[in-house]
Amino acid sequence: MDLSELKFHRTNGESLYDQLVNALESAIEEGGLAPGARLPSERELANSLKLSRTTTTNAYRELESRGVLRRHVGRGTFVCATPEPDEIPFAWRGKVSATALRSTNPALRNLMQDGVDPAVISLALGGPALECFPTAEFRRIYEQILKREPHAALGHGPTEGQPRLRRMLAARIGTRSDRILVVAGSQQGLDLLAKCLVDPGDAVIVDRPCYLGAIQTFRAAGARLVGWDIRRCDLGELEDLILRYRPKMIYTNPTFQNPTGHTLGLGERRELLKLVARYRVPLVEDDTYRDLYLDAPAPPSLRQLDEYNVVIYLSTFSKTLAPGLRLGWIAASEVIVDQLAMLKQNTDMYSPCLTQLAIAEILHCGLFDENLRKLRDEHTRRRDALVSAVERYVPQRALSYTRPQGGAYLWCRLSRGLTTARLLPQAKAMGMVFASGEVFYCDEAGAHHLRLCFTSSNVEQLEEGSRRLGKALEACAAAGSPERFSVTVV
Amino acid sequence: MDLSELKFHRTNGESLYDQLVNALESAIEEGGLAPGARLPSERELANSLKLSRTTTTNAYRELESRGVLRRHVGRGTFVCATPEPDEIPFAWRGKVSATALRSTNPALRNLMQDGVDPAVISLALGGPALECFPTAEFRRIYEQILKREPHAALGHGPTEGQPRLRRMLAARIGTRSDRILVVAGSQQGLDLLAKCLVDPGDAVIVDRPCYLGAIQTFRAAGARLVGWDIRRCDLGELEDLILRYRPKMIYTNPTFQNPTGHTLGLGERRELLKLVARYRVPLVEDDTYRDLYLDAPAPPSLRQLDEYNVVIYLSTFSKTLAPGLRLGWIAASEVIVDQLAMLKQNTDMYSPCLTQLAIAEILHCGLFDENLRKLRDEHTRRRDALVSAVERYVPQRALSYTRPQGGAYLWCRLSRGLTTARLLPQAKAMGMVFASGEVFYCDEAGAHHLRLCFTSSNVEQLEEGSRRLGKALEACAAAGSPERFSVTVV
Repeated sequence: MDLSELKFHRTNGESLYDQLVNALESAIEEGGLAPGARLPSERELANSLKLSRTTTTNAYRELESRGVLRRHVGRGTFVCATPEPDEIPFAWRGKVSATALRSTNPALRNLMQDGVDPAVISLALGGPALECFPTAEFRRIYEQILKREPHAALGHGPTEGQPRLRRMLAARIGTRSDRILVVAGSQQGLDLLAKCLVDPGDAVIVDRPCYLGAIQTFRAAGARLVGWDIRRCDLGELEDLILRYRPKMIYTNPTFQNPTGHTLGLGERRELLKLVARYRVPLVEDDTYRDLYLDAPAPPSLRQLDEYNVVIYLSTFSKTLAPGLRLGWIAASEVIVDQLAMLKQNTDMYSPCLTQLAIAEILHCGLFDENLRKLRDEHTRRRDALVSAVERYVPQRALSYTRPQGGAYLWCRLSRGLTTARLLPQAKAMGMVFASGEVFYCDEAGAHHLRLCFTSSNVEQLEEGSRRLGKALEACAAAGSPERFSVTVV
Repeated sequence: MDLSELKFHRTNGESLYDQLVNALESAIEEGGLAPGARLPSERELANSLKLSRTTTTNAYRELESRGVLRRHVGRGTFVCATPEPDEIPFAWRGKVSATALRSTNPALRNLMQDGVDPAVISLALGGPALECFPTAEFRRIYEQILKREPHAALGHGPTEGQPRLRRMLAARIGTRSDRILVVAGSQQGLDLLAKCLVDPGDAVIVDRPCYLGAIQTFRAAGARLVGWDIRRCDLGELEDLILRYRPKMIYTNPTFQNPTGHTLGLGERRELLKLVARYRVPLVEDDTYRDLYLDAPAPPSLRQLDEYNVVIYLSTFSKTLAPGLRLGWIAASEVIVDQLAMLKQNTDMYSPCLTQLAIAEILHCGLFDENLRKLRDEHTRRRDALVSAVERYVPQRALSYTRPQGGAYLWCRLSRGLTTARLLPQAKAMGMVFASGEVFYCDEAGAHHLRLCFTSSNVEQLEEGSRRLGKALEACAAAGSPERFSVTVV
């Protein structure tokens, strides 16, 4: 086949690049170009087709990436006739370490993937109303920083974080900047804390139910997890657990908790601090949702109330600005910040400089607080929309929940019998997903719970998502299973 | 003291914020504000001083961060009288895990910190000539992405990386995009690979000398490191080491190696592959410097030559675009990419989306390759400048080195006797730093070696840095130690 005969439209909106890729792929599929055939060089093809060299080069590369073409250095580009070396058998699975085999639960990654399909309304993933994000101002800030200090933005930076950002964060929570470590989202914070405080086999007490990412990361560090029911907040029980398991760390998310939305009261906070201080157990406070109150601010953080120097504080910009920025921070004693920085240098050296400088500026110029006010308004609207849509579309008494006062989630219990394992495939078939309850438990519980995020979807999506959830619930009921709906009280 | 009497200049260039911070701090130091005194609220102070509320709020926060003021929720802001809770003794040091105690070598972090002091010329850190970075185009690309697809840029993204970037990277190295994992710089790549393939106590064979970050990260994973002299490239010796230590992984940087600048020849590459395939040892190829050749391109990568499916390929944009972006990638078998993604989800969930999309665009539009051409020109100029400045300023025969053909480093050996442990303090006193040789060895060697980076400083800095290094060497000689300079051949 003579490739110089290929025809291109310069007007119909499809790029020349796409047209070339498609034309070549068709020629190969239809046999015009046989396996093993050598293609003209990028330059020759560009000349004969009057295309730019970039277009032909990128087209060849795209087809290589699809496994259709193969470039042999010094020989040229060929239509693939032989399998790629990656298909040559090598027992890679047998090379995986025992350490890595502790990380085989793909729940977190799967949640990310479900969020990507545009046909599916995902109420599974947590995130703020990105529509409020000050995109224009953010662009301006990026531009200013890149203009004013390109070296600081693009060059190496200190492992602990950009000094300016550390100062701003320290000021916000009333500490010194050498007690702040900037991390790549709260997830990295949890990972570093687990490495810093926990050896394989050590016990860690976590909320029950608990933020999924914490469960997975602590498990990957080899921790034995013990759940403590944060809603019941029975401190006698916690003391028993401490005595029995001798935990190396307690992890809690006491304010608009993920997934339950629950907030510990002031008295409970003081008693909790007193207890862990008595047993000298480090208390990791995940304060991700504090600024996202809807009806009224939460009580002071454990850190603010800590008279014993026993709290390590963790927060993130994922829920207050944007998750895609991947930036969070830890406040802790200098000894711990120093050790965490030592671990971070080996993990990713330091967090991206430009993002850090941009967030420091967002904090400094008041844009952060302004965005919080907008988010609170919008999230309140969305919470109300989800609750009323659930009331409207979900069969009576099929779900029970507590109206959240902040955070991002509606934590629901299915009526007796119905499991999310049965409901989720139905929901997916209807075009919506939620987060299944089991992933939030470090034991075998949660089969009848589900988490709906009300912040990251707009009102229309929340309504349509609820309608689809309602249909899925009806479908489960109609399937005539033994799991008929019945009244439940949480 | 009546704060409303404070006076401010609106003309002398010092910001009102700085003036207020300084005035309050002086008042506290000089006793005008006593320990325990309650300050007016931010609003009251702003009104009485005719300043904006933002100025007073930020000033209070700054002083809080310095530990001078303390805010008590609901009570107001006070001059600190009592120690911060962080100063309350809690045996944090005793809480650090045994796992974390494997990460107590601050070499990498210290290199970052040395790079920050503007009075010191640092030839210690590796990085590209940032002056070549297409800042204006980069700003435009950021702006376009934030305008066109703010949700993709700011929302959650897949753990494996943005599909567009994975496709572009796959195309560049001729593989499929499901064999690409985007990581937060090559450092995270090394960390994930160590976790994926190595259990504590396992042996890993590394270059000798070796990239510092690899040594530290593998050690943190509990690996026993065995060095193999990459310059001698004795494959009989490597076979002996494989048989003796049964390594779980071999790590090499065979192209313009860090720190030596050495490149394996084509024949050596083929033999190396044959050997590791025979023993079925995964071979991690760090190909960070491939595109940074100066005189002529390097032989094909091990990955390109791999007929056995035994290579895991690692690269980064830190040396070809900018280190502050913190973005790299791994190409490996799907099984390994899948397991690495499982580990990454627990480590930082996914890499920043906006950066990924921007780099995909930089690759797509040809800016990346254009930047490479500029870097090669500029780096050649800088290599030549460093070599000639060293010739000029360094006492004859005090250093020996091989002129690098690519990469970023001049690897030097001090004449017999002089150690970098003696030289570095002298160099710092003269206002320059280099990377000491020991940090690149997994054993006790390297005391007489040093690494100078020629890419990240401009010609003027390279000359001045060499001049200072020369003076430091003279000072060591003049100190009349037994370590007189003498002829050495590398």
